[in-house]
Amino acid sequence: MIPFGQRLALAVSQKKNPVCVGIDPRAGSLPESLKPKSGASLESIVESIENFSLEIIDAVADLVPIVKPQSAFFEELGPLGLVALHRIVRYASQRGVLVVMDAKRGDIGTTAVAYANAYLGSGAPGTVAYSPWGADALTINPYLGADTLEPFTQRCASSGSGVFVLVKTSNPGSSFLQDQRLEDGRTVSETVADEVESLSFATRGALGYGDIGAVVGATYPRQLEAMRARMPSTWILIPGYGAQGGSAQDVKLGLDARGLGAIVNSSRGIIFAYEQSRYEASRWTESVRKATLEMIEALS
Amino acid sequence: MIPFGQRLALAVSQKKNPVCVGIDPRAGSLPESLKPKSGASLESIVESIENFSLEIIDAVADLVPIVKPQSAFFEELGPLGLVALHRIVRYASQRGVLVVMDAKRGDIGTTAVAYANAYLGSGAPGTVAYSPWGADALTINPYLGADTLEPFTQRCASSGSGVFVLVKTSNPGSSFLQDQRLEDGRTVSETVADEVESLSFATRGALGYGDIGAVVGATYPRQLEAMRARMPSTWILIPGYGAQGGSAQDVKLGLDARGLGAIVNSSRGIIFAYEQSRYEASRWTESVRKATLEMIEALS
Repeated sequence: MIPFGQRLALAVSQKKNPVCVGIDPRAGSLPESLKPKSGASLESIVESIENFSLEIIDAVADLVPIVKPQSAFFEELGPLGLVALHRIVRYASQRGVLVVMDAKRGDIGTTAVAYANAYLGSGAPGTVAYSPWGADALTINPYLGADTLEPFTQRCASSGSGVFVLVKTSNPGSSFLQDQRLEDGRTVSETVADEVESLSFATRGALGYGDIGAVVGATYPRQLEAMRARMPSTWILIPGYGAQGGSAQDVKLGLDARGLGAIVNSSRGIIFAYEQSRYEASRWTESVRKATLEMIEALS
Repeated sequence: MIPFGQRLALAVSQKKNPVCVGIDPRAGSLPESLKPKSGASLESIVESIENFSLEIIDAVADLVPIVKPQSAFFEELGPLGLVALHRIVRYASQRGVLVVMDAKRGDIGTTAVAYANAYLGSGAPGTVAYSPWGADALTINPYLGADTLEPFTQRCASSGSGVFVLVKTSNPGSSFLQDQRLEDGRTVSETVADEVESLSFATRGALGYGDIGAVVGATYPRQLEAMRARMPSTWILIPGYGAQGGSAQDVKLGLDARGLGAIVNSSRGIIFAYEQSRYEASRWTESVRKATLEMIEALS
């Protein structure tokens, strides 16, 4: 199994762009043709959400290297939603797109092992690279400590998968802990960044990037630039582009001169593009494709 | 709907103990009568895990106020595992036991809203206190910032549910961030604790405790004692008792003079009690009950 950091570099190079499409579906925002009728059963709502997600994958699979389903919007639908999420991940893999599961998991010891086993690995059943959820990568939370990252990094090594550790998130309140300065002069997010870089450096491949990535929001461009320099071996997953306010100029600060080293996520701006007046609402999959192409163009 | 902090106080008072039974099942540790045969299908493994969990609930429902399923061990089984988890939560509620879902969720904005909607609320379908997963409370992670706790606290208020925010976890590496001292003199975990106390104080009921709890591990007794004093309105969920090393003397530091203010979790020490030589391995549900009664006795 080729390590995740190298598979991601290959995918970004082949598709010639770093765009990650965030699959964040909600029943209330679905296009008219898929919107559940009022009073629809949960089963039929989940079916609509699943069809919407599969059509998005169809619309972007030949364009982008990676997609990012947001687990929360499927968990919100109860166990049926998770059944749908499982099919969506498999479908994206079949269509040749990498999948980073955005679930922000984190726990200690054997519980972290269980999360790692659950999500990391998109190989066939019976192989060491198999996991029941079949994602290529997973977002994880560092609050519990550096020791709690180990079960994930071990699983990455054995299954050719990756993680993106939360470093600096895109929300207004991310300063609450992440920007606090410690006695050694580093901030909390810099402390996490140094740990991540150390882990990723140890796994870096031919193109210089390892398998342990970091999440750094587009909404704090100066910090993104500083984090790019601080973590030279680390893939950065950049949320916050578009709807949350990050511009193309901002996110380019996360890319190296070859256009590698970062993937840039857009969710609402792409999947609900049909809501924008410049697209035709009735042809929503076309608007997904157009919005993706526009984002690729803006970042090139 | 009675607020969670008061429902928990009532349950602890009625059962006359603060024991929380952690439902952390793994196929490899199931008692002989339930252990899946080698080569068993995933369906049959999940069925064994579900039956094991339901029997644990039967064994402890009349003894303890609350149980804590660990989501990771169900996610590890793929979507079928989540279907089983859903039934287990419902069953515990039917048996009159409160449920705190240990999922350590955390995200920003509308994604946090989705997690809150998913888990918080054990009322009937169609009511404001309904959630598809139907838990009374959820563990959440504060790394993303104080603003990301708001969607959860709002949902707690509207649905009579609660959260336990990770403050100081029981693992050896929890010092990595949590014990770091900031420029204002507080540690990271103290900063989180102060935010939690402020949120819980605002929701405190007749017995003095609110709906926004904290996780503080039994493995750092001096910090537990300090956190008890620092968060006088806050329910503390104490992991780390028994198998992880926390003693009865240690965890009593989290309780107030009335025996309220904390719940003490034990997982392996209770659910896999049959593995200990002082119990009869063949009568595993009896060992669950005996181990629970011994823990209640030790804490009284």
